[in-house]
Amino acid sequence: MFEKLRTFFERRIPITDEQFEFIKTLFIPKKVNKGEFLLREGEMTKYSIFVASGCLRTYTIDHNGKEHILQFSIENWWTGDLSFKSNIPAQCFIEALEDSEVLLTTLDSLQKLAKYIPESAAFYESALQKSAAAKNERIVLSLGATAEERYNNFSEKYPSIMNRVPQHMIASYLGISAETLSRIRKKKSRKK
Amino acid sequence: MFEKLRTFFERRIPITDEQFEFIKTLFIPKKVNKGEFLLREGEMTKYSIFVASGCLRTYTIDHNGKEHILQFSIENWWTGDLSFKSNIPAQCFIEALEDSEVLLTTLDSLQKLAKYIPESAAFYESALQKSAAAKNERIVLSLGATAEERYNNFSEKYPSIMNRVPQHMIASYLGISAETLSRIRKKKSRKK
Repeated sequence: MFEKLRTFFERRIPITDEQFEFIKTLFIPKKVNKGEFLLREGEMTKYSIFVASGCLRTYTIDHNGKEHILQFSIENWWTGDLSFKSNIPAQCFIEALEDSEVLLTTLDSLQKLAKYIPESAAFYESALQKSAAAKNERIVLSLGATAEERYNNFSEKYPSIMNRVPQHMIASYLGISAETLSRIRKKKSRKK
Repeated sequence: MFEKLRTFFERRIPITDEQFEFIKTLFIPKKVNKGEFLLREGEMTKYSIFVASGCLRTYTIDHNGKEHILQFSIENWWTGDLSFKSNIPAQCFIEALEDSEVLLTTLDSLQKLAKYIPESAAFYESALQKSAAAKNERIVLSLGATAEERYNNFSEKYPSIMNRVPQHMIASYLGISAETLSRIRKKKSRKK
């Protein structure tokens, strides 16, 4: 499970065996089965989550009981509830959509990591910034784009997620009905 | 102009005159007239922006030439383009909607501030987290809420913005037509 983390680091900076032995001490490995929850709304969490294998979804439930998917996370992605840095209850549910392996780390461990390997702070920061930019893009798409444009954007940006997540969840993520999604997919497959 | 910044700090931690003299050296004051831009898409920026007075809007323009408003910022708010920490061009426009006074600071200055007043890192972090949570909420609303629910959420959350920003911009922010906004407002005023 740690090998995926090593690869993640080595794509960005060279890591010695000794450095990696230290990095390993900052992460807690955990397996979650399909359908299990890593976090539920209202729970306290102190973990940021690195996905080593599998697929997770992060969602909220609104006051009408409707689910809204904020994120799908596959191998090499970071996820977690925003509250992991503070002492407030989680606002999201995080559920495994496949049997998954994750590595958990705390804010304290991330700070130790930043001291030990200063470049790591920069690429963690860069991941946060990408995540914020993706949220802005999603807001813009939700304001102005048609269902088909949203579908195309998602399938171009996340082709690897497209085929492993149930279609009704993709529809939920895009804010369109399952029927509309199905109609768009049929139209696309006829064009090919 | 600096007094607003001092009040902002003092709501969170006590500040001595000597500390505030140091804080002042980390910020560059700037006045912008209504209609002027602090930043345009594609420009390089290194500034995070504290609004001391006035009102700004942050927006993007999509490939169809349509504007999408990401944020309105009034007194005591922080704003800026996500790229201010990195060496990439800005993705947003930031325009003054009123004559405004702002204080600009760099990542380097924020780091100096965090060393000098360690608590400041925590409340800057907390502002970022609130901003991310607000984005999540906006995504959820855009997926599931009716135009009227979105309007109600905005007017409860940001009553001070509601009456000072042109109505067509509120409509743009909410992703609804100016006509729909006008209809909702009429309905509300009849109820009062």
